[in-house]
Amino acid sequence: MATFMHYTPGEYAQGHIRITGTELSDGRQFFYLDDTPEYVSGEKVRELRDPRELANRFEPGVDGEGNPIPVQAPQMRRDPLTGDWIPMATARMNRPITAGPGATATGNPLAARNPGDPYQDGEVPDTDYDVVVFENRFPSMNRIPGVKDETVYVDGNPLWPQRPAVGRCEVVCFDPKEDSLPADLPVSRLRTVVEAWAFRTAEISAMEGIEQIFPFENHGQEIGVSLAHPHGQIYCFPFVAPRLEQELQHTEAYRSRTGGNLLRDILKGEVDAGGRIVMRNSTWIAYVPAAARWPLEVHVQPVRDGIFTLDQLNDNERWGLAQMYSALLKRGNMFFDTGNGEGMDLPYIAAWHQAPVRDRRRSSYRLNLQFFSFRRAANKIKYLAGSESGMAAWISDTTPEKIAARFHELGDTDIDK
Amino acid sequence: MATFMHYTPGEYAQGHIRITGTELSDGRQFFYLDDTPEYVSGEKVRELRDPRELANRFEPGVDGEGNPIPVQAPQMRRDPLTGDWIPMATARMNRPITAGPGATATGNPLAARNPGDPYQDGEVPDTDYDVVVFENRFPSMNRIPGVKDETVYVDGNPLWPQRPAVGRCEVVCFDPKEDSLPADLPVSRLRTVVEAWAFRTAEISAMEGIEQIFPFENHGQEIGVSLAHPHGQIYCFPFVAPRLEQELQHTEAYRSRTGGNLLRDILKGEVDAGGRIVMRNSTWIAYVPAAARWPLEVHVQPVRDGIFTLDQLNDNERWGLAQMYSALLKRGNMFFDTGNGEGMDLPYIAAWHQAPVRDRRRSSYRLNLQFFSFRRAANKIKYLAGSESGMAAWISDTTPEKIAARFHELGDTDIDK
Repeated sequence: MATFMHYTPGEYAQGHIRITGTELSDGRQFFYLDDTPEYVSGEKVRELRDPRELANRFEPGVDGEGNPIPVQAPQMRRDPLTGDWIPMATARMNRPITAGPGATATGNPLAARNPGDPYQDGEVPDTDYDVVVFENRFPSMNRIPGVKDETVYVDGNPLWPQRPAVGRCEVVCFDPKEDSLPADLPVSRLRTVVEAWAFRTAEISAMEGIEQIFPFENHGQEIGVSLAHPHGQIYCFPFVAPRLEQELQHTEAYRSRTGGNLLRDILKGEVDAGGRIVMRNSTWIAYVPAAARWPLEVHVQPVRDGIFTLDQLNDNERWGLAQMYSALLKRGNMFFDTGNGEGMDLPYIAAWHQAPVRDRRRSSYRLNLQFFSFRRAANKIKYLAGSESGMAAWISDTTPEKIAARFHELGDTDIDK
Repeated sequence: MATFMHYTPGEYAQGHIRITGTELSDGRQFFYLDDTPEYVSGEKVRELRDPRELANRFEPGVDGEGNPIPVQAPQMRRDPLTGDWIPMATARMNRPITAGPGATATGNPLAARNPGDPYQDGEVPDTDYDVVVFENRFPSMNRIPGVKDETVYVDGNPLWPQRPAVGRCEVVCFDPKEDSLPADLPVSRLRTVVEAWAFRTAEISAMEGIEQIFPFENHGQEIGVSLAHPHGQIYCFPFVAPRLEQELQHTEAYRSRTGGNLLRDILKGEVDAGGRIVMRNSTWIAYVPAAARWPLEVHVQPVRDGIFTLDQLNDNERWGLAQMYSALLKRGNMFFDTGNGEGMDLPYIAAWHQAPVRDRRRSSYRLNLQFFSFRRAANKIKYLAGSESGMAAWISDTTPEKIAARFHELGDTDIDK
């Protein structure tokens, strides 16, 4: 029987949600977030041990011929021309669990486990669950116990620092049903997903070496998501990611120049202008930013000031966010005209921009969600080619006002009504 | 009969190539670059007038019902959170000339025109050509005569400057044969393509408002290229593009700190280390950068110092570049193991990083080509999902040394041999 760590209600989780931690057989952390009885936390007695007996990931293994396989710490290198750190996830190249279009139900590693299920890559050691979070089995970033976080130089050249990628990658599974779409989940389940983001942000912030916690959701085969089971990821970077770095340079410069908070003033500007506001409730406001770069792009900020990261949200704000996330996904599915009035399963990326964990510029930031889609018409994809991939120069095929006007056709702006 | 402008040999073109300028019927500039007789320049007498009688692009038109269509200057807005200028190419949304998978030969706007050809979107008013360059019919950036380059503020808010996108977009057609692959073109034809890049860089640098000239090639349906005819583009930005801006910040900081040129010292470091050099001839060196982010990535720099832009290359360097570009494309096609030893038509992006036109940081830079592919295995694509598209955080699936080792299997490093 695995060991469970029961979180006291209120310690991390707000409201009714119960969190229980355990470990998979290779030592990875695994968390249940229950929003409905029976709770794993003490009220449910089951054999929840991971039956796979996976090798401890931090001990050297042996290959099929008995040769030792050393434990390798993922490495990252700093690109001198951009300053970007590039994790090099050599182990990901042939990861076995990726399900392709032909994958069967038993090949879904996020499926709830059926008693007697022989499938050895199933990651959830339970017959049912609400939301679970666990460490990625093949992480591109990870801290290996005993491996020192030391910088070396590639070929001895100080232009090329290299050090272990002491980050962390987690998977958030949104629902036990593998054919659920996030847009169709009840608000109460999305509320539990919000809880997972907040809980993990709080706990991981205390871990050594983590500089930024990035919960995100990739949705749709069009952007390479091969596993249909509704899920998201949390990348925890041992650096400030390039895009956040760029934003922080601007929020800091703005604070120096004006004393104000740039994101707050952007939000105020959007509220004052009005025309690009697409949804609001008592705790959140969603708008198409005035210089949107994607064919469909919406940013979401909390109404209340002083929120840098998801774990700072109160119970009311967590409910408000779940409600807004649900409405955003539903309206996103109706955004492009498919000709039959039925909408589509919109491919999208939902990217949580949180303030950095330790960086002194943290206080000039403000939590925001950046939601966007590569789709530019019902039958067209925006590809990131030379201009975007080579020069980071986006060229919009539309205007923010047109995006907002389409959202206004899809429902009331005030979603509390 | 159209008016021709004959460039004196040596004025722009190095060596044997002759350049002749003319105009399409809507006033767009159009250039022939002839590498073989008969030259348009005086030795060939043909009716080269564009037969389409397109409306002058800068005069208001009328729609099908006789209503006037005003001339709109493409606009761009500055994103306050990143500082990026975003051109908003509303007119591109429904551009008619994009050929789809079902496009026929007569639907290829880059095809040489056959006498009596009724196809009205053919852009080349000649029955044969070597290389041509012309202004894009539906540019996302363009200067409209009489439209002042004035900044206004979206909704009156100084956070959101907007001004005309006074850039320029040109198309470079590499060869008259629509089924040619750039990898299969003779070096002598690629030499003419180099000439086109250099010529346009020289001429456009003198145009008002242009800050960066970006020749690039998108190749492959996998990245959304629907027109198979071998061609590239030249985007001329009225700003320094975000990626070049990031690089200039680093080349400037390096110069302040060390007095050196960062790109030169990177090149020297790669030559000293040796293992990531994949090709060299007497004028160019190609290497996998020590912190490569793409599954296949090669950077190419000239050997000679003091080259900021392509127009500064001498005749010998232009030949050397054509030879190296050819070898790079051929080896790129063999890079991934298709199982039958025949290679593939590799999808790639070739991005020319030139020093900015006017920016004072120009002198800390150095011309370089960044060549990369989204393909990460013969049957796999690297998608730019949440980490890359949302946070600009690349995670490599391989290592630079593995990429270089594969290139070393594909041919001699010294390509002069």
